[in-house]
Amino acid sequence: MYSVTVSHHVMIAHSLVGVVFGPAQQLHGATYVVEAELRRETLDADGIVCDIGRALDLLKAVLGEFDYRNLDELAEFRGRNTTTEFLAREIHRRLARRIGEGALVSTGAAAIHSLRVVLRETPVAWAAYDAPLE
Amino acid sequence: MYSVTVSHHVMIAHSLVGVVFGPAQQLHGATYVVEAELRRETLDADGIVCDIGRALDLLKAVLGEFDYRNLDELAEFRGRNTTTEFLAREIHRRLARRIGEGALVSTGAAAIHSLRVVLRETPVAWAAYDAPLE
Amino acid sequence: MYSVTVSHHVMIAHSLVGVVFGPAQQLHGATYVVEAELRRETLDADGIVCDIGRALDLLKAVLGEFDYRNLDELAEFRGRNTTTEFLAREIHRRLARRIGEGALVSTGAAAIHSLRVVLRETPVAWAAYDAPLE
Amino acid sequence: MYSVTVSHHVMIAHSLVGVVFGPAQQLHGATYVVEAELRRETLDADGIVCDIGRALDLLKAVLGEFDYRNLDELAEFRGRNTTTEFLAREIHRRLARRIGEGALVSTGAAAIHSLRVVLRETPVAWAAYDAPLE
Amino acid sequence: MYSVTVSHHVMIAHSLVGVVFGPAQQLHGATYVVEAELRRETLDADGIVCDIGRALDLLKAVLGEFDYRNLDELAEFRGRNTTTEFLAREIHRRLARRIGEGALVSTGAAAIHSLRVVLRETPVAWAAYDAPLE
Amino acid sequence: MYSVTVSHHVMIAHSLVGVVFGPAQQLHGATYVVEAELRRETLDADGIVCDIGRALDLLKAVLGEFDYRNLDELAEFRGRNTTTEFLAREIHRRLARRIGEGALVSTGAAAIHSLRVVLRETPVAWAAYDAPLE
Repeated sequence: MYSVTVSHHVMIAHSLVGVVFGPAQQLHGATYVVEAELRRETLDADGIVCDIGRALDLLKAVLGEFDYRNLDELAEFRGRNTTTEFLAREIHRRLARRIGEGALVSTGAAAIHSLRVVLRETPVAWAAYDAPLE
Repeated sequence: MYSVTVSHHVMIAHSLVGVVFGPAQQLHGATYVVEAELRRETLDADGIVCDIGRALDLLKAVLGEFDYRNLDELAEFRGRNTTTEFLAREIHRRLARRIGEGALVSTGAAAIHSLRVVLRETPVAWAAYDAPLE
Repeated sequence: MYSVTVSHHVMIAHSLVGVVFGPAQQLHGATYVVEAELRRETLDADGIVCDIGRALDLLKAVLGEFDYRNLDELAEFRGRNTTTEFLAREIHRRLARRIGEGALVSTGAAAIHSLRVVLRETPVAWAAYDAPLE
Repeated sequence: MYSVTVSHHVMIAHSLVGVVFGPAQQLHGATYVVEAELRRETLDADGIVCDIGRALDLLKAVLGEFDYRNLDELAEFRGRNTTTEFLAREIHRRLARRIGEGALVSTGAAAIHSLRVVLRETPVAWAAYDAPLE
Repeated sequence: MYSVTVSHHVMIAHSLVGVVFGPAQQLHGATYVVEAELRRETLDADGIVCDIGRALDLLKAVLGEFDYRNLDELAEFRGRNTTTEFLAREIHRRLARRIGEGALVSTGAAAIHSLRVVLRETPVAWAAYDAPLE
Repeated sequence: MYSVTVSHHVMIAHSLVGVVFGPAQQLHGATYVVEAELRRETLDADGIVCDIGRALDLLKAVLGEFDYRNLDELAEFRGRNTTTEFLAREIHRRLARRIGEGALVSTGAAAIHSLRVVLRETPVAWAAYDAPLE
């Protein structure tokens, strides 16, 4: 199996609802360093999983949808706890949809069968969501 | 699949028995940077794999059992080669036991089904043990 | 010259006032990875700049004063742009005051003559403030 | 499952053929930081996956076959696009062959059943090839 | 003293002339991870050394002048050994000229008095050039 | 000013004498990741501070003098607290002596006027010694 991973970052504010979150119930923020690992079994005719430049642009576009924002104020996250795990799943969903729509235009991009998204929130804690692309 | 990973470090002395270890047969030491990756298929009601703070505390508690120690002198390691691989397995075993005992008290913690433990010993070498939680 | 550096992190929300800040004028957040470098010309009787454990505790205590907070709501930052540079200076000021008050109780701690504080906000941007201790 | 990972680097020049590569069609170069993860289910009699020193030497030997070279001029790569993904596969193939020939002489080395090779080309992009050893 | 540092990378091919360079006399390449540290004594009216976004754009523009190129073919480097040290000096010169021309348009940008440029070529070797801005 | 930095690591055991060291009074150990920064004002005729390969070999040779050792048992450290700060100074002294003896044989090596040695002991603590070469 081959994979290509690209990384970018995003700076957001948010608060979390639930006693388990302790001080993180207060409005605070995070720099998330986000990695997206794209996987396929064989390479395309150019010898790649996909264009790394396009993959990086795609990740930046998806992260740009909430970069420099207070997630508590975004309608799309209303009533949801924007935990690191939730955000990993959400970024996975958005990347998957765009890949399905042809964002990685390589003729072979359909062959990308799974995706792992990692969000690093501090040097000692990170979360991931890993699932097939449908 | 979701995962949360926490990281902490430990500073130990030890020696290894066997010609294969060359100079590491001498009493020497290591800073191990240890990562514990906890995995489950769905998030709990709070939207998390588990409380990251509790996971970090649990890792620190387990590493505290031999931090600043000479492993050659610990009864629990008598007659064992405390290789990086062995220690990864050992930390996995101790984390698994405590998780089974409820250390990550979230009602959903039982849903954590597997665990990967990585020990980084130098910038160019690390070892891991990865197994289901029973 | 000798130095000892300790590192910890803090997760905050804030917004910045001024056209130059572009999207960072919105309420957003950051994980700052903070390094404090303590310097002296000679070591104390124990052969150290200061107790690394105490230095790390001191840094954690100072960062704890605004960890998990929205800096826009703290009276102490009213009317100030809490830029990375400003925060580096502010953390420097707070560390310096506590060092002056004996937080690093070593008899030789008075010999720490200067301090550099670095705040890493993303993998590609960081700021620092470096000045003598009075 | 246990694993041991070793890392080393290589500095090469190359160019890539295909419109998808944009400016990388020009002769340029890269420092690849390469990781090789060796996996087995049980440890050998010494308590290891394999000798980390030998594993590191093996990785260095394989990388030495094209370190400080222009890949466009090497007969072995004639007519191939030496993409990061391709090189991950190629290094995997060379490591696998040598492991099969006994390069990791431990009596238990036959038990190494799979191998992951990662090539980091910039701080924001890397590729990997992961496959069983036959 | 305050400083702001931004980082970006560049992928180049080149060869070096001189017995001292051993195998690096061959055409090979590198990913240089480049850091530019901008320093001033006081902050401007916005509370910054300079706009970090602009500083990052400036660094990218300067590195873009030889990204994905074979330095041996660039007229500007004819007859010069493009060592890591030389390139650090060259990037410093180009950044300094553009800063002097107003690239960091903040009214306070003239107050940036010195600049350090670091080029990381492998995980175990890097070079820097540090000098005042005239 | 130009600089070149090389990095390598060493794995040692030791104990420290003094109440201030708390649990580090016990025999324990460390992986020290060591950086040596060599500085000069102008480059030599080859366009370098010194041969990076030789500098790395020199650092490895000096670290090899106590790699995989228990520092408590080395005559040269008898009666000394082998703190991180002390070891930074000691490695500085040994590198300086060998540089003075011509270890970096470049005709221009005499121009290396100062040296900074950093020892990273954990991800959150490091120490350094920085001084001119005589």
